[in-house]
Amino acid sequence: MENILLILTYIAVTASAISGALEARKHEMDIVGATTIAFATAFGGGTMRDLLLGRTPIFWIMDPWLSIITFAAASLSFYRLDRISNKLLNVPDAVGLGLFSILGATYALQLNTSAIVAVLMGVVTGIFGGVLRDLLCNRIPNVFRRNTELYATCSFIGTWVFVILIKLDINSLIASIIGALAIFTLRILAMQFKVTLPGP
Amino acid sequence: MENILLILTYIAVTASAISGALEARKHEMDIVGATTIAFATAFGGGTMRDLLLGRTPIFWIMDPWLSIITFAAASLSFYRLDRISNKLLNVPDAVGLGLFSILGATYALQLNTSAIVAVLMGVVTGIFGGVLRDLLCNRIPNVFRRNTELYATCSFIGTWVFVILIKLDINSLIASIIGALAIFTLRILAMQFKVTLPGP
Amino acid sequence: MENILLILTYIAVTASAISGALEARKHEMDIVGATTIAFATAFGGGTMRDLLLGRTPIFWIMDPWLSIITFAAASLSFYRLDRISNKLLNVPDAVGLGLFSILGATYALQLNTSAIVAVLMGVVTGIFGGVLRDLLCNRIPNVFRRNTELYATCSFIGTWVFVILIKLDINSLIASIIGALAIFTLRILAMQFKVTLPGP
Repeated sequence: MENILLILTYIAVTASAISGALEARKHEMDIVGATTIAFATAFGGGTMRDLLLGRTPIFWIMDPWLSIITFAAASLSFYRLDRISNKLLNVPDAVGLGLFSILGATYALQLNTSAIVAVLMGVVTGIFGGVLRDLLCNRIPNVFRRNTELYATCSFIGTWVFVILIKLDINSLIASIIGALAIFTLRILAMQFKVTLPGP
Repeated sequence: MENILLILTYIAVTASAISGALEARKHEMDIVGATTIAFATAFGGGTMRDLLLGRTPIFWIMDPWLSIITFAAASLSFYRLDRISNKLLNVPDAVGLGLFSILGATYALQLNTSAIVAVLMGVVTGIFGGVLRDLLCNRIPNVFRRNTELYATCSFIGTWVFVILIKLDINSLIASIIGALAIFTLRILAMQFKVTLPGP
Repeated sequence: MENILLILTYIAVTASAISGALEARKHEMDIVGATTIAFATAFGGGTMRDLLLGRTPIFWIMDPWLSIITFAAASLSFYRLDRISNKLLNVPDAVGLGLFSILGATYALQLNTSAIVAVLMGVVTGIFGGVLRDLLCNRIPNVFRRNTELYATCSFIGTWVFVILIKLDINSLIASIIGALAIFTLRILAMQFKVTLPGP
């Protein structure tokens, strides 16, 4: 189980790093910009979670492999990826959204926070990397815009499912799997059917 | 007294949340953008204060009502507020500026910082939410611009008053009230008479 | 030695503060914007370093002189500096880049991080102030752009030199001097010969 989680994390981090580097390339950046934005995208959510919850040193300080993978993925995709279908990135990105949201909520619950704060922490952990990526590229974060398919909303719903299951004393491993799968599935469906939120 | 402080805080948080949600709506965002920016505006200053001073977990982790109020205020104002006079928001916003500035300086002084650092912490706590709101909307923060009426300056002056009173061993409750009232009054006067700072 | 370090730090902080205030002036900001951006530029890197490593309260909370110098440098350059050659700022800025990078890596190594994380922390400490300055001015950070002369790269190479020397058990004072000098020299050479990184 531990190993599966680690492999999924590495896959999601790699997908985030690639998406960061490719976004940087669109904005006439050099490799420094590309790697920085790759790091911000891959580590931003977890870093914000750890800062807010007071879990220091931050998660990536202690595992060099996360940095090495991000660095390699960023450099390779900046120099070598001539064209990649966004659809190819969307699946690992949805894996990451599910994984990181549940992880964020889990760490919050360990501090005995209320359900709503745990859900917020899940959503922050899930989406903040992409928000940071867009801010560093000087544009309004994608996830905030009206014509974007459900993203934070998937994390929000799935994390509520997870938190409610935990409050019902369901085994935390089972609750995690159900929550993460719910987020992943909702995100894939939202992209497939281009579901967006209603405007004001 | 405790209760008055709590009510004032909730009022100020609500005002910040509404201002965040309305700003988001101007930038073609959806409800995810609106609630995120509402949270950033309402919690940004206090979060930055707690991070810098090492007070973790952050203040809003432990009080679910802050999140619930922000969430409700953001959703309602995004979907339901057709038009709100900015003047209506300005008064609770000035309450928040006074309250949060004094709170920031108080927490800094508890760590025995020097007067200037306490004042800086007060100003940061008072203005950072609005700065974050504007950054997330991809514009230069309002409070930095030359044609904006005094805002950070009110916090700066009033927090100095508070810190000096504390250093003179005045009762901290009285010092707080004087400081917060000074900030509130200066801000209201600055808006009334459109006072701006001199350019270079 | 301690004194030399302190003087170098104050010089680098002053240079950062001036560069922040001048950048703010270009963007039609008032003195509030100028001082805030001066603080962000001067303190941003070290603040991020301390937050990520869990070293709170942050470094500038305890030394009022850092705040006083930044405040004075920002006000003076906003109101009084009619024109300053960028070249004049580049030398103290390169001193700061060298100094702050090595300091960042040193604090990371004290937590027994791996070499790559220490190097990343050095680079973050060295460049984050300038990144923050540009973000607050609502533009893509200078250091990420393709036509910018090597900046983060100098920090990256010199910090690697430092970390490798430390792992080889070289005296840490000597390693620091060599590392910082390497960064400083690389940066000066990069500007002199307009060296940039290859695009994708």
